[in-house]
Amino acid sequence: MKLMRIGAPGAEKPVAYVDDETYVDLSDLVRDIDEEFFGSGGIERVRPVVAERVAAGRVSSFAGERVAAPIARPHQVLCIGLNYRDHAAETGQEVPSEPILFTKPPNTVVGPYDDVRLPRGATKTDWEVELGIVIGRRTSYLESVEEARDAIAGWVLVNDVSERAFQMERGGQWSKGKSAETFNPTGPWLVTPDEVVDVLALDMWLDVNGVRRQTGTTSTMVFDPYEIVRYLSQFLVLEPGDLIDTGTPPGVGMGLRPQVWLQEGDVIELGIEGLGQQRQRVVGPR
Amino acid sequence: MKLMRIGAPGAEKPVAYVDDETYVDLSDLVRDIDEEFFGSGGIERVRPVVAERVAAGRVSSFAGERVAAPIARPHQVLCIGLNYRDHAAETGQEVPSEPILFTKPPNTVVGPYDDVRLPRGATKTDWEVELGIVIGRRTSYLESVEEARDAIAGWVLVNDVSERAFQMERGGQWSKGKSAETFNPTGPWLVTPDEVVDVLALDMWLDVNGVRRQTGTTSTMVFDPYEIVRYLSQFLVLEPGDLIDTGTPPGVGMGLRPQVWLQEGDVIELGIEGLGQQRQRVVGPR
Repeated sequence: MKLMRIGAPGAEKPVAYVDDETYVDLSDLVRDIDEEFFGSGGIERVRPVVAERVAAGRVSSFAGERVAAPIARPHQVLCIGLNYRDHAAETGQEVPSEPILFTKPPNTVVGPYDDVRLPRGATKTDWEVELGIVIGRRTSYLESVEEARDAIAGWVLVNDVSERAFQMERGGQWSKGKSAETFNPTGPWLVTPDEVVDVLALDMWLDVNGVRRQTGTTSTMVFDPYEIVRYLSQFLVLEPGDLIDTGTPPGVGMGLRPQVWLQEGDVIELGIEGLGQQRQRVVGPR
Repeated sequence: MKLMRIGAPGAEKPVAYVDDETYVDLSDLVRDIDEEFFGSGGIERVRPVVAERVAAGRVSSFAGERVAAPIARPHQVLCIGLNYRDHAAETGQEVPSEPILFTKPPNTVVGPYDDVRLPRGATKTDWEVELGIVIGRRTSYLESVEEARDAIAGWVLVNDVSERAFQMERGGQWSKGKSAETFNPTGPWLVTPDEVVDVLALDMWLDVNGVRRQTGTTSTMVFDPYEIVRYLSQFLVLEPGDLIDTGTPPGVGMGLRPQVWLQEGDVIELGIEGLGQQRQRVVGPR
């Protein structure tokens, strides 16, 4: 099952993807795809209804509505740094011995086709195609990767947009370069685990202005998604609907020689096998 | 005005503090003291009602109910590191040239008298009395400290509990040591700015088991609260109800020689002039 949210910001409705033309409306059943939805077994509740409505032909046509992030603003957005061996190398940093945790504000989550807005003063804004994990239930102290597997509601495509000057040159921690509005395009779909044969063998790519910049596969992750969820649950309580960005493969602008940064007017396109594609236009500061 | 929330976790009701024995119930007017409340001018809406009810004797007695955090779980908890000159010195780090930003998960916010729970594997859990800022409206790119002043809904007392081994010895960023459940006791009150004569001249203190450990004043902050809000708004969008922990004065366990860490059974008491007091019992891991 692929869940989506469509509609204007603040007025999104929950739907299930059928094909590129049609969807099943779930707004009579479900208020939103949010913490309450995941925490109350929403996925298993809507699953038979989606099948039933598809069988009965109760589908609607996408009619140019905005595609929003497939999850409502989460409780927290956790991010893993330097989680692909070759990406660590291209940034001149060592492969970490345990996952590096940083965070993004939840209000950075926007739709997959929304504009990415450069922050004021930005000089080194960069792209990062990533596999996102959506948490399915409140949990902590998971004892095994098998337990972690059961805590995952699904997978999403994310672009972990980053301002490297703010991240690296403004004192201390990375947060300042990860937090600007529009910095976490998410979606188009939340794909439930049953639809992904092997999450550790997904091709991923990112283009800027039609030039291929990132080519990777989840098979080269340092810490796999199940280990990430198990590990993080030792340090904090995960809530239903929480989002985890799991790190990016090689090919970010910071790693190129010479380095390349996003400019107003650029177009970013990215995708992960089975998780759909995104396209963002880069716009200037407010 | 001093706002509070009282009642069991998940069933808190909003009230206004009158004195140590009595409060004005606001639950007929206000659903919660949360993002929607702050964002819709809630403080100015309830202010005359509180005065009216106090005048009419419509007050209730605190009857042993739990005192919760005075704000509902916020959208984000931002924290400023090393923001007191003498605290930076005691930890062996330099006074930062601009504010250091890190974050805590919103679900670390608990009541001022709730237990602080040691995380599993904790060996260096520490205390930090801090002034907290509560944001009053959605804002970004504030142009002056005067504009920042208008974006502040009020002040709270917080204990920025920290596990130093997780923070410093587990790779990369600080988040892992700041994120365990119960790690951000908040309250008892949200005090509106009109009740605090000079937020830059408040005495603050913290005791562990009756021994004075921290003695400080907000007058020795490196970056004052208005500058912090102005600064952070350049990097991210602040939402109504967001909480900012502004750093701690000297006297944390990490700075003592020999170092001292919290143990099961310890009692932490802390306060800031005009913002009330907290008391937490330290309990063992789940």
